[in-house]
Amino acid sequence: MMSYKRGPRCWWPHLVSKALSLAISYALTLSLREKGKEMYASAGCLLSLHHSEKPEHEEVCEFRPYTCPCPGASCKWQGSLEAVMPHLMHAHKSITTLQGEDIVFLATDINLPGAVDWVMMQSCFGHHFMLVLEKQEKYEGHQQFFAIVLLIGTRKQAENFAYRLELNGNRRRLTWEATPRSIHDGVAAAIMNSDCLVFDTSIAHLFADNGNLGINVTISMC
Amino acid sequence: MMSYKRGPRCWWPHLVSKALSLAISYALTLSLREKGKEMYASAGCLLSLHHSEKPEHEEVCEFRPYTCPCPGASCKWQGSLEAVMPHLMHAHKSITTLQGEDIVFLATDINLPGAVDWVMMQSCFGHHFMLVLEKQEKYEGHQQFFAIVLLIGTRKQAENFAYRLELNGNRRRLTWEATPRSIHDGVAAAIMNSDCLVFDTSIAHLFADNGNLGINVTISMC
Repeated sequence: MMSYKRGPRCWWPHLVSKALSLAISYALTLSLREKGKEMYASAGCLLSLHHSEKPEHEEVCEFRPYTCPCPGASCKWQGSLEAVMPHLMHAHKSITTLQGEDIVFLATDINLPGAVDWVMMQSCFGHHFMLVLEKQEKYEGHQQFFAIVLLIGTRKQAENFAYRLELNGNRRRLTWEATPRSIHDGVAAAIMNSDCLVFDTSIAHLFADNGNLGINVTISMC
Repeated sequence: MMSYKRGPRCWWPHLVSKALSLAISYALTLSLREKGKEMYASAGCLLSLHHSEKPEHEEVCEFRPYTCPCPGASCKWQGSLEAVMPHLMHAHKSITTLQGEDIVFLATDINLPGAVDWVMMQSCFGHHFMLVLEKQEKYEGHQQFFAIVLLIGTRKQAENFAYRLELNGNRRRLTWEATPRSIHDGVAAAIMNSDCLVFDTSIAHLFADNGNLGINVTISMC
């Protein structure tokens, strides 16, 4: 398990955050745009869109490159889906992986001040899932925790799974069940819409033990 | 089901909120205090406490009178536990009661502005439970919903039960399981500590249908 301390504004939208890569791909994008082609046509996208429709499509296009899924990290890597796991194993060695459908994601020191991410990997059903717990102040003066599961895979693959996050305490249980997000979509939009397990510091303390919070994570096929 | 629109600060601590009753009982309290007795000695409390321990004990004393459990309402009624249900049926006729262990608490118009309470009763296992959904701004500019189940009974009786609140949406489910609170404790402290189902307006919208939010409520014995 790995925790990152983040600056207050790490969650730029996809691609826009990747200033460096953007600069490199800018010339290519421009020339493709002039020819009326979709930005990721060379990567396999066959759509032919009107000029005004392109930016919106490119945001969700399955053929745009995958960026490093580590939340809040400054890693500028991007590449194909197949290259994501090798990248994580090579460049983010400190992220723990647990095998199995039912594991415990133990976030230590949840009282660390400021914006913090806890990240680990879960491997089951022949796939890798990234578990993210993020602490941030979406509303000033009100710190909240957001927990979510991402599939290292496409949006379509993600629809074949369901996940359950469970906090267990003294005669109390809080459970969130949903479909994993694809790392192609990332966690920012989910957190923006509270489309994940959301709880505040008071709830965290109801379930934490000595500043450590255990989240039961169960993945299933559906 | 009944919804109240409330002012921003309806949640005074127990007893303090009951300004009128407090005034009436003040003379009695004073004379009991002078004699070194516990305030609710005449109601059956056998404890003999040091002067400094009394205010704290009186807050939780099983013998202090029950106040009207309707949240946010201006009702100043208080009386014995046995008198609570007759009071509710007489003075708060608009509160719906559903029979059964497993019911749906349908909160209509969750987009109503400001602080709002939705209240209904559930009757099962020979007991009455009060279901409360409250919308309020605990943190400025951040509206949240708090849902909880109260037993019309003592704290000791409440420990024999468990409740589950469940929001079901499109491939999403949020569940809170806990022990009901006694109406003797009320909901204010639970909301203060987030010791209930807490969700924000974004989550409410994920689960609401046309501005109405259905909460599945299941009571069980344990």
